[in-house]
Amino acid sequence: MSTQTALRKSIGSSSPEVALWIKGKDRRLEVMSSVPHVLSTPVGLLAEQRTTDKKYLFVRNIQDLAEGMTIEPLPLEGWETELVGLIRPSRVVIRGEELLGMDQVEYEMILQCSGNGRSQYRGIPGTPWNQGGVGNVRFAGVPLKTILEKYKASVDPQVKYVTAEGHDLPMGLEKPDFEHSIPVAPVLERSIFALKLNGEPLPGIHGGPVRLVTPGLFGTMQVKWLRRLRFETAESTNFYHATEYRVPLSRLKPGEKFRFTMENSRPTWDIRLMSYILQPESGAKLKAGAVAVSGVAYNDGSARIESVLVSFDRGQSWQPAKFEVPDSPYAWYRWTTQATLKPGVYEIWARAIDALGRSQPLDGSIFWNPNGYEWTGVFKVEVTVN
Amino acid sequence: MSTQTALRKSIGSSSPEVALWIKGKDRRLEVMSSVPHVLSTPVGLLAEQRTTDKKYLFVRNIQDLAEGMTIEPLPLEGWETELVGLIRPSRVVIRGEELLGMDQVEYEMILQCSGNGRSQYRGIPGTPWNQGGVGNVRFAGVPLKTILEKYKASVDPQVKYVTAEGHDLPMGLEKPDFEHSIPVAPVLERSIFALKLNGEPLPGIHGGPVRLVTPGLFGTMQVKWLRRLRFETAESTNFYHATEYRVPLSRLKPGEKFRFTMENSRPTWDIRLMSYILQPESGAKLKAGAVAVSGVAYNDGSARIESVLVSFDRGQSWQPAKFEVPDSPYAWYRWTTQATLKPGVYEIWARAIDALGRSQPLDGSIFWNPNGYEWTGVFKVEVTVN
Repeated sequence: MSTQTALRKSIGSSSPEVALWIKGKDRRLEVMSSVPHVLSTPVGLLAEQRTTDKKYLFVRNIQDLAEGMTIEPLPLEGWETELVGLIRPSRVVIRGEELLGMDQVEYEMILQCSGNGRSQYRGIPGTPWNQGGVGNVRFAGVPLKTILEKYKASVDPQVKYVTAEGHDLPMGLEKPDFEHSIPVAPVLERSIFALKLNGEPLPGIHGGPVRLVTPGLFGTMQVKWLRRLRFETAESTNFYHATEYRVPLSRLKPGEKFRFTMENSRPTWDIRLMSYILQPESGAKLKAGAVAVSGVAYNDGSARIESVLVSFDRGQSWQPAKFEVPDSPYAWYRWTTQATLKPGVYEIWARAIDALGRSQPLDGSIFWNPNGYEWTGVFKVEVTVN
Repeated sequence: MSTQTALRKSIGSSSPEVALWIKGKDRRLEVMSSVPHVLSTPVGLLAEQRTTDKKYLFVRNIQDLAEGMTIEPLPLEGWETELVGLIRPSRVVIRGEELLGMDQVEYEMILQCSGNGRSQYRGIPGTPWNQGGVGNVRFAGVPLKTILEKYKASVDPQVKYVTAEGHDLPMGLEKPDFEHSIPVAPVLERSIFALKLNGEPLPGIHGGPVRLVTPGLFGTMQVKWLRRLRFETAESTNFYHATEYRVPLSRLKPGEKFRFTMENSRPTWDIRLMSYILQPESGAKLKAGAVAVSGVAYNDGSARIESVLVSFDRGQSWQPAKFEVPDSPYAWYRWTTQATLKPGVYEIWARAIDALGRSQPLDGSIFWNPNGYEWTGVFKVEVTVN
């Protein structure tokens, strides 16, 4: 199978736009052809780029919008999103072209699949993400609170959750439609109707023309092709919100069976603290002497990253890395450090600590969960020094 | 005022037992005579003793049992504790002398006031605890689940909380009676009717003859002089549970006003991760050369302590301390490290990390709360090296 065919297969579409997109791809683009509707961000690019290019940003869809399988923008004209539920008036329709006239804000922010790092857990099926399910991007759009003001809409104080639906459709009649609920506080505080990615109109494949974006939350909560927001007193009981994309409230042993309920689990909302080593990559052969190590660290944006500690001796000692503090609390911190290494086999470990004292466990499988969400373990790469 | 008078005043009693206790006291016993019903554990003793002696273990009472103001045990004979609420039969009376015939378990565990470390927060009234509101002790007694089996009592599955009351009385008619609720799961899993402290009958001043002890929880939840357990579907709305001994769910700025409700706050249940430097003490003058540093670390017992990191350069670098892992997950870890220091003024910092990746913020005031509960910041001592 040619790479182009594999790529086309990997996003489950053969539309002309996708063919064009594939034609222009970088040869380092990772192909995860065993899983439909998934493209992984190439790790080499994460190391090079502060802002992840739209072409290389990961894609993970539960279901698709047929005309959205393109790296090109979709037209805003005629795109309608409605607000319904416990609001006054009880229904507000927002036309795409009206959004263009409103004030926009931009967030530099992490976009990360809640299954990113899944391959670090032992024995979990699902998209075998290692580091490829994350990127650092700039989303811009109209704040929901601006929209509410513009349409003179008021939210009932009883509202506790906002549930988002897209125009995309289930992959078959037997499947439930995809949607997610988010607590109303962060939605009113910082959600935007995103229209742009990295300064350009939002590509179809990344949820354009209108995507609900709430910085600090996992990618699954950033609902693409936004069709409807429901303002309600309770969380959605939809399959993808009430059963999938959840983690248990109690600790499980790896492999343990678990039957998810709304009471014994919580949604994968807030991005967990994480640090990655991007260079060197695992398996690298290095020359003895000064070895540079670099990577990124991030959390849910609720507190700054305070330290990134790096160990070359499996945790016997830790040295602090240097990092830039980004302007946006939701963006990643790029860090570097170096060490003088003699010939041998090394594990290099990285661990971040934030201002709330949140850190990463040495063994991330302590948070093992059946779907492998929210990996937050200390990141480890093995290298050989000659 | 003589030390004896001060001590007597400090525990608000002039009973003969207290006089005897005071007579035998160690001169290092810290006196916090400005606050009634409080005695602080001497820090020097914490450093010396793996198990904190009953005579030096801190005392903090919201209200007293008149005959309980003694370091001697109170008689178990005739002491009754009742179980009521959503259980079958609907009322069970447990006589103290019957407890002696049942199987007992012992926990080595932290006993800590939720206000311990309060003096580290900026501008908070209340018992000015620094490190004196904590000890590591052994409580032994009969598990509640053993008692339920013995009395053939069953707990309704609707029960969510167990509320504990003592035989102690409010300090005045205008004050509410003291009680606390604990989630039913840890109570059924590990609560005991404690009868012994460090292998001896439980002293009156520490809650004897029967105290509800649940390892891993703050001291305020270890209800003394146990009179009644209520098995209920909801938490107590009592002043001390619903308004006091709570921390906000949101972050406050130091000094910010906050009106506590059950919805915007949570009880001070689980002990927060903490590490203390016990030697050298703050303000110590040390000789240049090898300097030994030692202390303790602990958490709520739900995961082991993974690292204790010590910094001599205000966080620029961290070295791992050596520690013993105690058999009990609820006990403290004693750790030591050393460094070669040249003359100068140093801050020594200690920070623990546990297997859940929980650590301590560099500035613990990030969790500032009006009552100064649950201090968990990185512990810092300043020393001068000559």
